[in-house]
Amino acid sequence: MSVETKATNIVWHAHAVTRTEREERFGHRGATLWFTGLSGSGKSTLANAVDAALWERGVRSYVLDGDNVRHGLNRDLGFSPEDRTENIRRIGEVARLFTDAGIINLTAFISPYRADRDAARALQKEGDFIEIFVDCPLDVCEQRDTKGLYARARAGKIPEFTGISAPYEPPLRPEIVVQTAERTVEECVAQILSYLSNSGALKP
Amino acid sequence: MSVETKATNIVWHAHAVTRTEREERFGHRGATLWFTGLSGSGKSTLANAVDAALWERGVRSYVLDGDNVRHGLNRDLGFSPEDRTENIRRIGEVARLFTDAGIINLTAFISPYRADRDAARALQKEGDFIEIFVDCPLDVCEQRDTKGLYARARAGKIPEFTGISAPYEPPLRPEIVVQTAERTVEECVAQILSYLSNSGALKP
Repeated sequence: MSVETKATNIVWHAHAVTRTEREERFGHRGATLWFTGLSGSGKSTLANAVDAALWERGVRSYVLDGDNVRHGLNRDLGFSPEDRTENIRRIGEVARLFTDAGIINLTAFISPYRADRDAARALQKEGDFIEIFVDCPLDVCEQRDTKGLYARARAGKIPEFTGISAPYEPPLRPEIVVQTAERTVEECVAQILSYLSNSGALKP
Repeated sequence: MSVETKATNIVWHAHAVTRTEREERFGHRGATLWFTGLSGSGKSTLANAVDAALWERGVRSYVLDGDNVRHGLNRDLGFSPEDRTENIRRIGEVARLFTDAGIINLTAFISPYRADRDAARALQKEGDFIEIFVDCPLDVCEQRDTKGLYARARAGKIPEFTGISAPYEPPLRPEIVVQTAERTVEECVAQILSYLSNSGALKP
């Protein structure tokens, strides 16, 4: 890039730091770990646990979840099919930016529609988007009901609630499936880290 | 955060890595350097030059500009006043996420409206948002016309072009003013780095 400054006749040059340079210095690749699953399946808990495990290994990582996105970037969006699609589109774009910055970003959103997740995947290069299906039976999620949302949805107080009154389309070919009703957090984290090691994401 | 797993009676615990922990390890604070100014004033060139200088110092930084945002996250937006406002709102939210991730993020957008920039500032804590007015006279920007946009705007081929047919509201109290018609890139970069050093942003 160069900009000629006519006023002083000086040519401006700027070197843009590349993703490759970042990855070489950081010692690992940028990538998106896209957690998808029902409310209460454990997406956010697991994303934060993987984030903490990556932190212990010196990896640069960051969690995007309802707390920092739904009340911020996407606070203008509701839960209609169109708004859910736009919600996931924006998250997919932000995830791409973090990947480009050389950061392993972990997104924890229900993201119920297959087409929306595939669109987020299509924004990134092959291997940069790792879909993690947080597989947990509806009845277990509903028993947990950590936020009391299922009870309110069953009472008809939350319209379009995924699994109750709105669809969830499970991934067909996710890179990773974690079964949180049958495994501990530690086991699920180990499974994900193992995948990352084997796939080369933890090397530049 | 804890989620009780009813199925196995195991309580899930996850430690969320905090911004403070990130900043202590990285050795510098997260912050937004918000470049604002006319088209051709040198925002993107300067943001990339500062990014490169921070890179040399081992600082984690990332540039958000038209190339990676306007064609991605904000590709549904045009240049009407409403769309410009939404454009800057989203960029402000993404900047906040990068700051929270402990990264010095540099945004290079015209961002012509004072109220929009102030709204982006209000999303962040005192001191985290550093507004940099890239001050360059319109006639110099128009002489440079690196992208040929001014010629097209003068010919009436680009509606609502900032400085020609749409307003630019200069900052009233920016943290930094760089005068790119009178200084070299190196001088402007040195000025900005000096501010960052003195303000403590380059320390955790």
